[in-house]
Amino acid sequence: MFEVVPFDIEIGQYKVMLNIADARAMGLNPGDRVRVRTRGASLTAILDVTGQMIGQGQVGIFTEAFRDLKEAKSVEISPAPRPASISYIKMLMDRQKLSEDQIRSIVRDIVYNNLSEIELSAYITASYIHNLDPQETEWLTRAMIETGERIYFDKHPVVDKHSIGGVPGNKVSMLVVPIVAASGLLIPKTSSRAITGAGGTADLMEVLAPVEFTADEIKEITETVGGVIAWGGATNIAPADDRLIKAEYALAIDPYSQMLASIMAKKGAVGADAVVVDMPTGPGTKLETPEKARVLAKDLTDLGERLGIRVECAMTFGGSPVGRTVGPALEVREALKMLETGEGPNSLREKSLALAGILLEMGGVAARGEGYRAAEEILVSGKAHRKLMEIVEAQGGDPKIRSEDIQIGEHQKQILSPTNGYVVAFYNKRIIEIARAAGAPGDKRAGVIIHKKMGEIVKKGEPLLTICSSTDWELECAVKMCSMRDALEQPPIVVEGMLLERYPTERYPRTI
Amino acid sequence: MFEVVPFDIEIGQYKVMLNIADARAMGLNPGDRVRVRTRGASLTAILDVTGQMIGQGQVGIFTEAFRDLKEAKSVEISPAPRPASISYIKMLMDRQKLSEDQIRSIVRDIVYNNLSEIELSAYITASYIHNLDPQETEWLTRAMIETGERIYFDKHPVVDKHSIGGVPGNKVSMLVVPIVAASGLLIPKTSSRAITGAGGTADLMEVLAPVEFTADEIKEITETVGGVIAWGGATNIAPADDRLIKAEYALAIDPYSQMLASIMAKKGAVGADAVVVDMPTGPGTKLETPEKARVLAKDLTDLGERLGIRVECAMTFGGSPVGRTVGPALEVREALKMLETGEGPNSLREKSLALAGILLEMGGVAARGEGYRAAEEILVSGKAHRKLMEIVEAQGGDPKIRSEDIQIGEHQKQILSPTNGYVVAFYNKRIIEIARAAGAPGDKRAGVIIHKKMGEIVKKGEPLLTICSSTDWELECAVKMCSMRDALEQPPIVVEGMLLERYPTERYPRTI
Repeated sequence: MFEVVPFDIEIGQYKVMLNIADARAMGLNPGDRVRVRTRGASLTAILDVTGQMIGQGQVGIFTEAFRDLKEAKSVEISPAPRPASISYIKMLMDRQKLSEDQIRSIVRDIVYNNLSEIELSAYITASYIHNLDPQETEWLTRAMIETGERIYFDKHPVVDKHSIGGVPGNKVSMLVVPIVAASGLLIPKTSSRAITGAGGTADLMEVLAPVEFTADEIKEITETVGGVIAWGGATNIAPADDRLIKAEYALAIDPYSQMLASIMAKKGAVGADAVVVDMPTGPGTKLETPEKARVLAKDLTDLGERLGIRVECAMTFGGSPVGRTVGPALEVREALKMLETGEGPNSLREKSLALAGILLEMGGVAARGEGYRAAEEILVSGKAHRKLMEIVEAQGGDPKIRSEDIQIGEHQKQILSPTNGYVVAFYNKRIIEIARAAGAPGDKRAGVIIHKKMGEIVKKGEPLLTICSSTDWELECAVKMCSMRDALEQPPIVVEGMLLERYPTERYPRTI
Repeated sequence: MFEVVPFDIEIGQYKVMLNIADARAMGLNPGDRVRVRTRGASLTAILDVTGQMIGQGQVGIFTEAFRDLKEAKSVEISPAPRPASISYIKMLMDRQKLSEDQIRSIVRDIVYNNLSEIELSAYITASYIHNLDPQETEWLTRAMIETGERIYFDKHPVVDKHSIGGVPGNKVSMLVVPIVAASGLLIPKTSSRAITGAGGTADLMEVLAPVEFTADEIKEITETVGGVIAWGGATNIAPADDRLIKAEYALAIDPYSQMLASIMAKKGAVGADAVVVDMPTGPGTKLETPEKARVLAKDLTDLGERLGIRVECAMTFGGSPVGRTVGPALEVREALKMLETGEGPNSLREKSLALAGILLEMGGVAARGEGYRAAEEILVSGKAHRKLMEIVEAQGGDPKIRSEDIQIGEHQKQILSPTNGYVVAFYNKRIIEIARAAGAPGDKRAGVIIHKKMGEIVKKGEPLLTICSSTDWELECAVKMCSMRDALEQPPIVVEGMLLERYPTERYPRTI
């Protein structure tokens, strides 16, 4: 029997800690599994060892396990086998083909938090290095669907949209969802929050209404008003993805077949019949060349076919922001204004109508080739605006809100052109960094208004950007990022003839 | 300013935990790095986030960081860049060649615990899948040497021995070290404890004397008596290895170039001029075929050449245990008896003299081809025994100890042959499992005496094995593993004609 020392730290999984001498005596090492038993409760936990913190005869037990052991004062501990999925991860490292059962076993252990971070990371790394084949990717997708909640709609077709991401200001879902819902199709859109961006669709929608709903609520709202824009992270739909994203983010990698499976699992779990995938392509995006985009498009449509989901991919130019705003409130204001008036920046209007049009065609409410025009009619007639307001109301927001009511950061500063000329370079990543420095997406009112885009003409002293923030110090931070204080920094926008670097710089004057 | 909530858990690195809302507001995600500042102290920590345990405006700080922040009540927190080594690990995943600086940066961040377990695991996994090339492996080895303590001997040559492991009962270092030291060469042997085996050399030596010494003490003992048998884990020699082993063990992988580097770093750090590598080869070992062993031998000698260390590899048969004992006390008794009498099991005597002989030749105290005979002379003359007793005394043990004084587990049971015949199968791994079930290596007195080995003749009722343990219940556990209760279990020794399986078994009688 070991005396329990509770560790009041939530770590998301069962973990216990033994003194190294006790562990050695039992032939146990860190990473091994142990069975922990007390009267009326037992569980399997991941073992760690310590030299000092826990004495011999004691066991440190973290919050989750301590709770599920009914806060026992003493427990018995014995060696337990490791999850079989660890040996399947090893098989993946050796690039042996995995069976459906083996893949399901890995996904289950991920969802139930049975894998340590070391083991999870090995899976992510191995699947980054060795892609899964199409059959394995199908099994992976099915396992991700099965291990989470699913939505079964009584009415069909159900359509959905996904964006590969990587382009700033990509607020098109705020237009596509109401246009499609207004056509009579169901579109239960779950979205992400920004991780490294300036605002995901969930961050945007949250400016207008709550976005955290259960799968049942998503079903109910969609069946009532035709569409929803919810945060996927609040549901238990394809939950494996949430666990994987943490490790993927930490390693800054996005394993290809895992990405395919994560996209399609979320669509499969909500019962989508047809999906359009927005693929921003071009310099600075995730898909730098059309070839890369075409490979992804083929793989996604093939995977869709295996799952019984029709997929169409729309490659769009991602080298420049969509519309002229970046940051949640600014983007929602721009999208809402377009819904109110039917007009707005061409890049936003064209892209939204093209994507919505594809879904109208796939859903059978517009003939092939007629989708764009049908979508435009829904936008211009005001039906899309009314539909978004219905969705906002159904999600608990204010359906009377107007674009001009949306508050943006009151601390603002214009970045002026230092010279006359054309915009010859425009760096998306820098725009995102500036919006984040201003506070986006945590500060919904922070962001960037883009006055001049690639190829446009500008006069000396005219504004290139306006930066907005809720605080003056964040504004200052963001403004600093627009200057060219030294050679290490890159301005977001370059006007031809603009002085980019100068040696020696004023900050490092010559001493001789 | 954040209010500090101390978490009294040693985790071996700087780590802090923020509420998810605060993290989002700062644009931070789990795995990011943050700079934590208080008056007079600051450090960079790995960030994790939590939904509930830590409130907004608070920060949870684990033991090591809390101590080094002088137990501050409040701290400032700001985003910090991640270690550059993470991007080098990503390069390794993409199998780009790494520079010396990049490899050194990875090794440093491993040694200083700057990498999270997710990041460390990604490195191990990537280096398992993509081997490093010889130049990178040299840099890795040098970085592992530089980031730890080193021993500089005034007298040379210094020789050393390493075993690839994987064969039970491999007590040869207990003979090789005193033979070599008695010849006048220096042999500062650092050894490991068993992780998955029944006893490493450090576990064995500990039966006779303490084995935990600093690098300075190892130098002093070696210079005084010519040799030492110490536990490497107690030193700070090539410390990267200790960190790596934890993740390698958890994943049950042994990345090839990492293994080469770990072996040679330990030898390079103690200033070895010449090294003999024992390579047990054959079924059930790590080197199942001679081809595999030859590749490893070539890679080790090549790496040695790059480092200025002469390496010779000795392939030995590893399909059967060395000698007739497995488990610390039993093995030491067998080795000590051979030193006392000059005689003992052929497999142990031949192998020990062969390995010692190679070192005598490499060290220049025996002519090429004369090493074995020189080693035998040192053994038979009793010089090796006297030398081991000097080493035992120098390490703080009793130099008067005799082999018959060594206590073995008093709970013993013989496993008898169920039939007449020859031993036709002998499973090393099963022998190790039985010794571990009996308590080895934590219980030094536990282990297995092997009466019959592969190919030997046995009569019905004669003993095949004797199992020893300090407790009756561990003995019982170990004994059970020798039976054939069902088809899932494998007996350690098979005598021809022995009934291996029977359907239906008695345990699962037919119901019809």
